[in-house]
Amino acid sequence: MKVVIFGAEQFASLAWYVLTHDSSHEVVGFTVDAAWCHTSTKHDLPVVPFERLEQYFPPKEYALLISLGWTRCNGLRAAKYAEGKMRDYSLVTYVSSRAVVWPDLQVGENSMIYEGAIVEPFARIGSNCILRNGCNVAHHAVIGDHVFMAAQAVVAGGATVGERCFLGLNSTIRDGVTVAPGCFVAAGALVTTDTEPDGLYVGVPARRRPLPQDL
Amino acid sequence: MKVVIFGAEQFASLAWYVLTHDSSHEVVGFTVDAAWCHTSTKHDLPVVPFERLEQYFPPKEYALLISLGWTRCNGLRAAKYAEGKMRDYSLVTYVSSRAVVWPDLQVGENSMIYEGAIVEPFARIGSNCILRNGCNVAHHAVIGDHVFMAAQAVVAGGATVGERCFLGLNSTIRDGVTVAPGCFVAAGALVTTDTEPDGLYVGVPARRRPLPQDL
Amino acid sequence: MKVVIFGAEQFASLAWYVLTHDSSHEVVGFTVDAAWCHTSTKHDLPVVPFERLEQYFPPKEYALLISLGWTRCNGLRAAKYAEGKMRDYSLVTYVSSRAVVWPDLQVGENSMIYEGAIVEPFARIGSNCILRNGCNVAHHAVIGDHVFMAAQAVVAGGATVGERCFLGLNSTIRDGVTVAPGCFVAAGALVTTDTEPDGLYVGVPARRRPLPQDL
Repeated sequence: MKVVIFGAEQFASLAWYVLTHDSSHEVVGFTVDAAWCHTSTKHDLPVVPFERLEQYFPPKEYALLISLGWTRCNGLRAAKYAEGKMRDYSLVTYVSSRAVVWPDLQVGENSMIYEGAIVEPFARIGSNCILRNGCNVAHHAVIGDHVFMAAQAVVAGGATVGERCFLGLNSTIRDGVTVAPGCFVAAGALVTTDTEPDGLYVGVPARRRPLPQDL
Repeated sequence: MKVVIFGAEQFASLAWYVLTHDSSHEVVGFTVDAAWCHTSTKHDLPVVPFERLEQYFPPKEYALLISLGWTRCNGLRAAKYAEGKMRDYSLVTYVSSRAVVWPDLQVGENSMIYEGAIVEPFARIGSNCILRNGCNVAHHAVIGDHVFMAAQAVVAGGATVGERCFLGLNSTIRDGVTVAPGCFVAAGALVTTDTEPDGLYVGVPARRRPLPQDL
Repeated sequence: MKVVIFGAEQFASLAWYVLTHDSSHEVVGFTVDAAWCHTSTKHDLPVVPFERLEQYFPPKEYALLISLGWTRCNGLRAAKYAEGKMRDYSLVTYVSSRAVVWPDLQVGENSMIYEGAIVEPFARIGSNCILRNGCNVAHHAVIGDHVFMAAQAVVAGGATVGERCFLGLNSTIRDGVTVAPGCFVAAGALVTTDTEPDGLYVGVPARRRPLPQDL
């Protein structure tokens, strides 16, 4: 499928690279909001304003991949994902050939599962999620929509991670625990009990702290 | 080989799934103690009382896999393993095709090495061990019998882990350290020096705390 | 290529094993400083004094692999690497067939990337580095020369690790952070901001402590 990537920074370059080398998709361009459209090409492909994407890459012929990080607690990626769907684009999902997954893999659209990530049987991954390199989702765990799991984050058996959560580098969610929607789990944090929504959790074991306004 | 799995909860479902999709074994049923035998089928296979297992699945024709977690500091799994052997069952070992192991792999019976786990050359894994997804045993390390390593636990080069130990999610055992038998290393703990037997070790670096009676 | 390994302890045995089972190289002997040359054979191969290596294995016919750990903050490995080059030996690089790397992999000479390690696109690995099992280097990260990454150490996107750094077991370097040359990041440490040169960094988040004289 011919795919346009939303994003123009290093994270979009990474998405371009893995799709090009490890998927059946062909990346044909990049798109960002006109206000951020400071260059006309990237990796020898056109960069076009998202506001007028249909002019260049109409949704009947081209699919979209929103490759944004966890800015605004994943809210920016969620918004662009919603807008892409509303404008009738199909959203592609990428599962690395070097991710460790099983035949029963359940994953939504516009999700990316990077190399070395593990998703065990009976786990479920929502839509618009990013599972970075070497992260780990154990059996019967449920990952909601718009979640970002950083490298080596681990979610143990039967845990639940609500939508829009961010799980930092090397963070750990214990088995059976529920992380409420919108939580930000800091790098290295260990979550051992259920959390409250939209909380910032830091430390080993993790304690709640006020969520900064600018997150 | 035709195999009966001891266990009837989610962890047994996981074992059923991986054996079915990633081994030469055929799972033919489940068994639990009669007191816990609340259902007659699981995954369309019979669930039978362990006390009368020979009536349904005699040891000359069927092998056994004890797929229990770390309840009672691995003591429950050790007890059922001993009983299975005493009743003349052969116990099967599972090494995921997506575990990273070497031709010299040394591993005992009734051990399970899950996907993404790494066991380096010159390491030794005992019997009745469970090495969960993405855990890591480095060169010349020795893992005793009945050990449970949770996801992403890492045992460094030349370390020794005594029998019945539990190593929590993302826990770390430094190179050359000896973890005495029966220790419970909490999730995220970092063990930098030798431990005393049957201790609970928590924190970075890990300190000893009293082991709860109900563990 | 016929290779001589510098080192005679367990870490050299590991290098011998992986090169023998997972590379096109043939290990033909070991070498150490004469003062440490306490045995004449190892794995049925000759152990010869480094001072007179040319007599046994001349550089026109044999390559060298310096397989030393992080002794003296990688200074010993750096010194032997420099001496090997000065004496006209070519130095071999090992990338495990079970490491997760990409076609654009950039890695210098005498570096070893062990099984389960992940190196993402656009990352760069210097010369004389050791990336141990299951460690993780994300996109656009730069690893300088003579660096040792222990098992499951993770360097996030766009981070920079200066030369001669040691990253301990399960340690974490946040995205975009610069670790200055010669730093020793302890096991389990989480580095969230740029560091000063030659510092010891410990804890979550990591704080600077005096570097012991004997490191």
